[in-house]
Amino acid sequence: MPGSHPYDKAIDLDTIEDNVRRGRTHPEWANMVGPFGGITAAAMVRAIETHQHWVVELSQNGEVKTTATALFAIRRDTWADTEARPPSAPPPEEVAPGGLGAAIAWGARYDMRFVAGSVPETDPQPSPTSTTTLWVRDSAQRRVDYPALAALSDIFYPRVFLRRGGYVPAGTISLTTYFHADQEQLDALGGDYVLATAHANRFSRGYFDQSAQLWTREGALLATTQQIVYFKG
Amino acid sequence: MPGSHPYDKAIDLDTIEDNVRRGRTHPEWANMVGPFGGITAAAMVRAIETHQHWVVELSQNGEVKTTATALFAIRRDTWADTEARPPSAPPPEEVAPGGLGAAIAWGARYDMRFVAGSVPETDPQPSPTSTTTLWVRDSAQRRVDYPALAALSDIFYPRVFLRRGGYVPAGTISLTTYFHADQEQLDALGGDYVLATAHANRFSRGYFDQSAQLWTREGALLATTQQIVYFKG
Repeated sequence: MPGSHPYDKAIDLDTIEDNVRRGRTHPEWANMVGPFGGITAAAMVRAIETHQHWVVELSQNGEVKTTATALFAIRRDTWADTEARPPSAPPPEEVAPGGLGAAIAWGARYDMRFVAGSVPETDPQPSPTSTTTLWVRDSAQRRVDYPALAALSDIFYPRVFLRRGGYVPAGTISLTTYFHADQEQLDALGGDYVLATAHANRFSRGYFDQSAQLWTREGALLATTQQIVYFKG
Repeated sequence: MPGSHPYDKAIDLDTIEDNVRRGRTHPEWANMVGPFGGITAAAMVRAIETHQHWVVELSQNGEVKTTATALFAIRRDTWADTEARPPSAPPPEEVAPGGLGAAIAWGARYDMRFVAGSVPETDPQPSPTSTTTLWVRDSAQRRVDYPALAALSDIFYPRVFLRRGGYVPAGTISLTTYFHADQEQLDALGGDYVLATAHANRFSRGYFDQSAQLWTREGALLATTQQIVYFKG
């Protein structure tokens, strides 16, 4: 039986055949158009966990809507170093709660505290930088597993909003996430805040890229993630 | 008839069936183990160009060895900005030619001029940073097309060599490249040098990520690319 938490409902999948799982969209995860991409990514990671597929297709009414490729590998003890540094940020308890606005249903699934680059709202101005940094945790402090980490990789609203100082149509085309965290680090994290930071490198002819990192309070780099996004205007 | 240039030979594919192309490995592109990953990526991009597949499998002796997913989209005129900045580097003409050493056949396919983080050689020491920056062009100044840009995305030797100050077994597992350049920018580039820069964020338990950018002399960001790499030791 799935948990009653919206996240657990979203990644609850029925086994239809050996190679087929069935899930469903949920209104709690609605975005401006369709569902939050992160929850789609989470459901696909969940499907992979129940079978260890490597190539996955998500279909609706017989039409492929999303494809994914997953790669698994054994972690071994080796020399290790985190070369990147987390962005500077006060503890989440010292940052005012923010969010994505009432129009984005899935925004309420998370407790978001913006340290830099919050959503442009009253009298927004174009920003010279596309960087957003926020503390984020599940609203019900549901523990972070790999599907949840996949969802967090897509937590950022489109960078073009920040640069343009307001809303323009935009959406993720493709997303790649590398999970650096092992199970021990996820267990240590539990349902606590993650420090999430993202920026774009280039906006050009209807597309931009986004590069992002997810950190723990203790400075463990959980995941690095990239996406390519379309935009208009 | 394919061109006689090693790059043109490497991406020359025969049409076997509507959905099947046949290529072959070439000794000029040999790496320490198997072929240069970048030339494999280039051949797959070339296969996609001849058919517009979206999901591609590369097989040898009936076994799938590599898979790829490609996404295409129309470029439209929009607001544009390159937010990232190229690394500082003297012009390529002022940098001494370097390379990857005689053991790496494919290294000779390129004219490489290292600005920072060249291959650890005589009396190598661990480096505190994993950053490598180099000017690179095709040795015969063959013009850069999209398959060639895919190959350039994998031009960097493993970041772990730099951090550890020497060779350890390592290889790319998965690579994602976003092509920001349009055809006009590739035409303007021709066969000139590209400024390539790469760094790693985290090395942990046998794996590290690599984040890289390819720039023109004029400061156009041609591509951003990420990979995950295994290593031992």
